[in-house]
Amino acid sequence: MDMWKQDLKRIQPVSSKWFGAAHERWDSLAKPKKSLGMLEEIAARVVAIREEKIPSLPGKEVFVFAGDHGVVSEGTSPYPQEVTGLMVRNFLQGGAGINVLARCAGARVSIVDIGMKDDLSDVSGLIRRNVRRGTLNMAEGPAMTLKETETAMNIGVEMAEEAFSRGALMVATGEMGIGNTTPSAALFSALLPAAVEDVTGRGTGLDDAGLRRKTAVIARALEVNGPAMGGDPLSILSAVGGLEIAGICGLCIGAAARRMIVVVDGFISTAAALAAMRLNPAIRDYLFFSHQSSEKGHGVFFEKEGIRPILDLGLRLGEGTGAVLGMQIIENALRLYREMATFEEMGITPGT
Amino acid sequence: MDMWKQDLKRIQPVSSKWFGAAHERWDSLAKPKKSLGMLEEIAARVVAIREEKIPSLPGKEVFVFAGDHGVVSEGTSPYPQEVTGLMVRNFLQGGAGINVLARCAGARVSIVDIGMKDDLSDVSGLIRRNVRRGTLNMAEGPAMTLKETETAMNIGVEMAEEAFSRGALMVATGEMGIGNTTPSAALFSALLPAAVEDVTGRGTGLDDAGLRRKTAVIARALEVNGPAMGGDPLSILSAVGGLEIAGICGLCIGAAARRMIVVVDGFISTAAALAAMRLNPAIRDYLFFSHQSSEKGHGVFFEKEGIRPILDLGLRLGEGTGAVLGMQIIENALRLYREMATFEEMGITPGT
Repeated sequence: MDMWKQDLKRIQPVSSKWFGAAHERWDSLAKPKKSLGMLEEIAARVVAIREEKIPSLPGKEVFVFAGDHGVVSEGTSPYPQEVTGLMVRNFLQGGAGINVLARCAGARVSIVDIGMKDDLSDVSGLIRRNVRRGTLNMAEGPAMTLKETETAMNIGVEMAEEAFSRGALMVATGEMGIGNTTPSAALFSALLPAAVEDVTGRGTGLDDAGLRRKTAVIARALEVNGPAMGGDPLSILSAVGGLEIAGICGLCIGAAARRMIVVVDGFISTAAALAAMRLNPAIRDYLFFSHQSSEKGHGVFFEKEGIRPILDLGLRLGEGTGAVLGMQIIENALRLYREMATFEEMGITPGT
Repeated sequence: MDMWKQDLKRIQPVSSKWFGAAHERWDSLAKPKKSLGMLEEIAARVVAIREEKIPSLPGKEVFVFAGDHGVVSEGTSPYPQEVTGLMVRNFLQGGAGINVLARCAGARVSIVDIGMKDDLSDVSGLIRRNVRRGTLNMAEGPAMTLKETETAMNIGVEMAEEAFSRGALMVATGEMGIGNTTPSAALFSALLPAAVEDVTGRGTGLDDAGLRRKTAVIARALEVNGPAMGGDPLSILSAVGGLEIAGICGLCIGAAARRMIVVVDGFISTAAALAAMRLNPAIRDYLFFSHQSSEKGHGVFFEKEGIRPILDLGLRLGEGTGAVLGMQIIENALRLYREMATFEEMGITPGT
């Protein structure tokens, strides 16, 4: 059986008794009850994931999966596909947004070629796991075969396993792929479900005509692939997803199966996480949605799923940047939970 | 002339040309234009404050002003006044929320007794600048004299000056004072202005009857002091403010006059910052509102003033906790601005 399938089966909802234990500790700390708001909820969920009353501070890693998209031949992105490779070079040289924020957060960065068009044979430091050199055009048929999709998911699982064996307990999702808001919008439309217009935005800067074109392309992709997709999340991910998206889906599954904390980045990462949620709803307990992107459609996801993201800073860079900011908030929450004095230590009997 | 008055006069709006310079750099960095959203605006404002195209990373300090409030005799808080002193002891021992977050952020913490009822003669590390041992009951007359208010403001200015002379360029505001959401709500009502009911919340946990009582007390305080306050911000701050609030107001003034970055905490700190804004509207350019508190009324301020806070985590702890989280976001924004590679460095001609 595929690794991802084995891991998917292992994922169980977290136990509510651990939330009780965590809130008991929060209420013993020297502060008015519930006065740390969402930070209390964050730490309580980490307690429930880790099943430790006082969890250790998790080692942090971010995985940036890079892939290209055949659908860009439809004119869905203002940037040429070569930019995927150029940005990956930038990641490997430490000059991208994700590198800077990972340095701020103290997180290890791994860059994975899971489906880039360009073969960056001259660079070092790249994790070379190319499944195919870019997906096919989803507006004409499935973007990938089921086999390719599962291979990409297994790579994500492996990355989680490697991080876990290095001692990391918190992973952030990241991606780079010119044109990848297009498959992501298609996934939201099929998986939420939602109308194509409601989840299709301007990506990295489409004008009005471009947005109309992109919306039409997504509608066509969903129509062309409709019969093959049925309602099956894996088939949907194959037909209108992408290799980096399948990789992130696998990372979420592999990390949750190991009771790791998964910090989800923006629009594209959330589409991947949603696919994982549709494969096994229990995974939701392990996912921390770091921020609400300014890309139209991300808000639709949060509203439909009843989830509140940690940050709302109008980001739309991807790479895992919002997730690594979110990691810092989670770490602050855990440190408060671990390090604040209790009323008892202060010699106070708590009031109301 | 009082220090605070001298400094207030020195505060000028920042120059728009520096925003232009900052956005020119942001647009040269290897990312889609404006894709870092609010982080771009934050760093651009720091550039304009510091008047440096590439500002250095600012040293960080947080000041926690502690004061007590005569109005608690009206039953406006569920906690006894002694808790102010107990929490200050906790701050000095490093066990409070603000200590933990300041460690996360690498910020120096200073605790200032500016108006505590208790004389903590046995503790070390406290900055002893007590103006008076708690304010008078504002429901019966002015909480402080103008002289006391100005003395507290001067102490705030001095703290900014001391931080500046230690090389810090970013200060966060913090406070501790049982009952201090009551004077803060009165200040919002008088200074925004707004109806008392719209800006009065449950503080650290009032029940419905308590909330009605608190609202009535604030209305009474505004009525009793109305003639003396007129529309003058200083008189309003004296009549219905507090010593720690005046201290924060002075800190904002002293820091802005030195072109420092001021990171404002929650409900109480914002009331102090609002008083400073009413004394000189130019100060607004130097203030970063770190988060929206869950205390009712904070949202009214943001809406009326057209300001968007950085975070919205449902915090209502005070102490400067939200501000020190905000400092970390500001630092991340500055590091992105400073450290990301340019398109030119990557050998790319930027597209759209």
